[in-house]
Amino acid sequence: MESGNLLIAQGGGPTAVINQSLVGAVLAAHRHPRIRNIYGAQNGVRGILEERFVNLGQETSGNLLRVAATPGSALGSTRDKPDRPYCQRIFQVLKTHNIRYFFYIGGNDSSETLRILQEYADGENYPLIGVHIPKTIDNDLECNDHTPGFPSAARFVAQAFAGADLDNYALPGVYVGVVMGRHAGFLTAASAGLRQSAEGGPHLIYLPERTFSVDSFLKDVNSIYKSLGRCVIAVSEGIHDADGVPMIAKLQATMEKDAHGNVQLSGTGALADLLTDTIKRELGIKRVRGDTFGYLQRSFLGVVSPVDQLEAREVGEKACHFALDEGMGGSVAIKRVGQYVVDYSLEPLEHVAGKTRVMPDAYISSGDNHITDDFQNYLRPLLGNDLPIASRLRAPLVAKLLTE
Amino acid sequence: MESGNLLIAQGGGPTAVINQSLVGAVLAAHRHPRIRNIYGAQNGVRGILEERFVNLGQETSGNLLRVAATPGSALGSTRDKPDRPYCQRIFQVLKTHNIRYFFYIGGNDSSETLRILQEYADGENYPLIGVHIPKTIDNDLECNDHTPGFPSAARFVAQAFAGADLDNYALPGVYVGVVMGRHAGFLTAASAGLRQSAEGGPHLIYLPERTFSVDSFLKDVNSIYKSLGRCVIAVSEGIHDADGVPMIAKLQATMEKDAHGNVQLSGTGALADLLTDTIKRELGIKRVRGDTFGYLQRSFLGVVSPVDQLEAREVGEKACHFALDEGMGGSVAIKRVGQYVVDYSLEPLEHVAGKTRVMPDAYISSGDNHITDDFQNYLRPLLGNDLPIASRLRAPLVAKLLTE
Repeated sequence: MESGNLLIAQGGGPTAVINQSLVGAVLAAHRHPRIRNIYGAQNGVRGILEERFVNLGQETSGNLLRVAATPGSALGSTRDKPDRPYCQRIFQVLKTHNIRYFFYIGGNDSSETLRILQEYADGENYPLIGVHIPKTIDNDLECNDHTPGFPSAARFVAQAFAGADLDNYALPGVYVGVVMGRHAGFLTAASAGLRQSAEGGPHLIYLPERTFSVDSFLKDVNSIYKSLGRCVIAVSEGIHDADGVPMIAKLQATMEKDAHGNVQLSGTGALADLLTDTIKRELGIKRVRGDTFGYLQRSFLGVVSPVDQLEAREVGEKACHFALDEGMGGSVAIKRVGQYVVDYSLEPLEHVAGKTRVMPDAYISSGDNHITDDFQNYLRPLLGNDLPIASRLRAPLVAKLLTE
Repeated sequence: MESGNLLIAQGGGPTAVINQSLVGAVLAAHRHPRIRNIYGAQNGVRGILEERFVNLGQETSGNLLRVAATPGSALGSTRDKPDRPYCQRIFQVLKTHNIRYFFYIGGNDSSETLRILQEYADGENYPLIGVHIPKTIDNDLECNDHTPGFPSAARFVAQAFAGADLDNYALPGVYVGVVMGRHAGFLTAASAGLRQSAEGGPHLIYLPERTFSVDSFLKDVNSIYKSLGRCVIAVSEGIHDADGVPMIAKLQATMEKDAHGNVQLSGTGALADLLTDTIKRELGIKRVRGDTFGYLQRSFLGVVSPVDQLEAREVGEKACHFALDEGMGGSVAIKRVGQYVVDYSLEPLEHVAGKTRVMPDAYISSGDNHITDDFQNYLRPLLGNDLPIASRLRAPLVAKLLTE
């Protein structure tokens, strides 16, 4: 196997634990006989293009451990998707800096970027071992039981809805919380992670795996509101009509798109406002409130799943084991092998790159507006066992003394 | 002093610790020689009107302690503001149930409600001792160093902005976070609670204590963005123009108002969307994102200041001491008597009721777009000493080998 330099970069949206993976890889590669220098590229492939590297071998271990526990992408990130000239330039930089190992921490777009780059290097007979280290709060990577970043974001969403439900109980009305997830509804489904009973919210959950119908939605909301006097609703930002047109696209005339052709769904409260306005107008309910969880759910400082932290660290370490000890490239994947135990495998890049996993039917209720116990069983161990617990008063009613 | 029943109720918006105050009062009143029964009114004064009481003396102490640690108003809340007929009816219910002590946990609207009710009872020569127990995330009660609920909400906002700043560092652009606070900017100012350096966000903070000018705002944003390549902004939902018209009112044709005449500011993403659209259009910056923190900031399950929990419990206990041991009614207030030590006083209701405290000038920077060290010194002990810490990489840059 080759000796040379190791380069690590982070791509796509940050998560609460993406730095755990970075630090896991750096600590495992440190003083490895085959590694001379450990470089970090700033802002993902964009930093490679611009030859902006930091020398991670010269970080103190104390600071590395603190950075590991910090949300956000410590190296900076990018949404760039390299084309052929971009690849050529990157390849030139890699060669010049004697990069023989490249780890890219990211989601399906980042794994696709790595696949293209690996293909290019192979075509040039350059001995590059590329490893994709999984990360995405959307939990939409193929070959994985779940992805690092998802459990912490899921925990945030579960805690947020537990609180929003208590708030809605105190001041009854309709509450709509919009959750990230373009194609996969896992994170929106996590809204029920701390639900304790059928009277507790979220009472309705709308996922991008199903067609969204405004009529059914209004019927569902009206029915819950009539029976409970209130209604808490979780909605994925990616809900769409039967033609696949996102509900939010029906709203906005000028749509912003990123380099991957994705429409901007986050960073705007438009969808929540559309839905709350519709409920007010059509159902005549006065107190209707909408929140868009936005960036809080993916980078909040201080809400993190301990399971997620550990696993995110481990996928970084495993990248080193696969690449440096076994000389193998590919995509590190998390497999659930017990209740609750995981192990890691290395998958061919093309099995993960650019693909999107969505929620299996078994996780979605037959009425298409909630999740199943199967999903709860899947989710619960990921959230960690140190979850806060909400409790309600059970004091008996006092007999009325005045006639009504 | 009178023997009879004690009634407790919760009014206004819920907080993370309002149930601590409820439980503090219940535990202190339990088996007090002057108290026969401890009742809780459901949904504040609305529950008194409708004679909906629960017998809190029959709660288990274990469940009371769990409820204390649960956000939201366990008894339910209301926004009702009693007029004279409403008061007459309430008074009749209080008399019929032999209520001699009434504790109302709430903000300035709730204290005003209590003041009106007390006035009515006094006029009828009915021996009612009413105590207002302070609560509000807005921190806008007179006579108080700060109010229970604020430190936990402030902690949420500080942690949220620390995370949002890391996210914005990873994927640079402009980020606008809209924070609750109609007239008082304390909670918005708390966005800087975990700021570590001048390069860290929030870089700009806009408070309702100052006039908001779109021109100055754009100039500020442009200047920060040009120097740092990114900009994180905290905005109060209550920002307004020179005539006092809320910025959000300029947007919405039909405004929803509550019984207190307040325009709906929360539960909509409109203000964030207005500001991000303006930045995109006027400054030509592409990546501009807005989040509205909404209900997450006041009832999130699992983010709470330990200082706040303790003090919220104590104001409930002190209400009992003042009312039951000393036979005095009024409004319990928190006084800061050391660094960091508090004590509690009982203030005349009319000194708090219906009044609004705003941020003192010493807390607002001279440029009107940030906060001062004085405010940081005021805020820091309230957040608790178990705060998460964010760390950045300090690895040195690698020399470029290719000419640019």
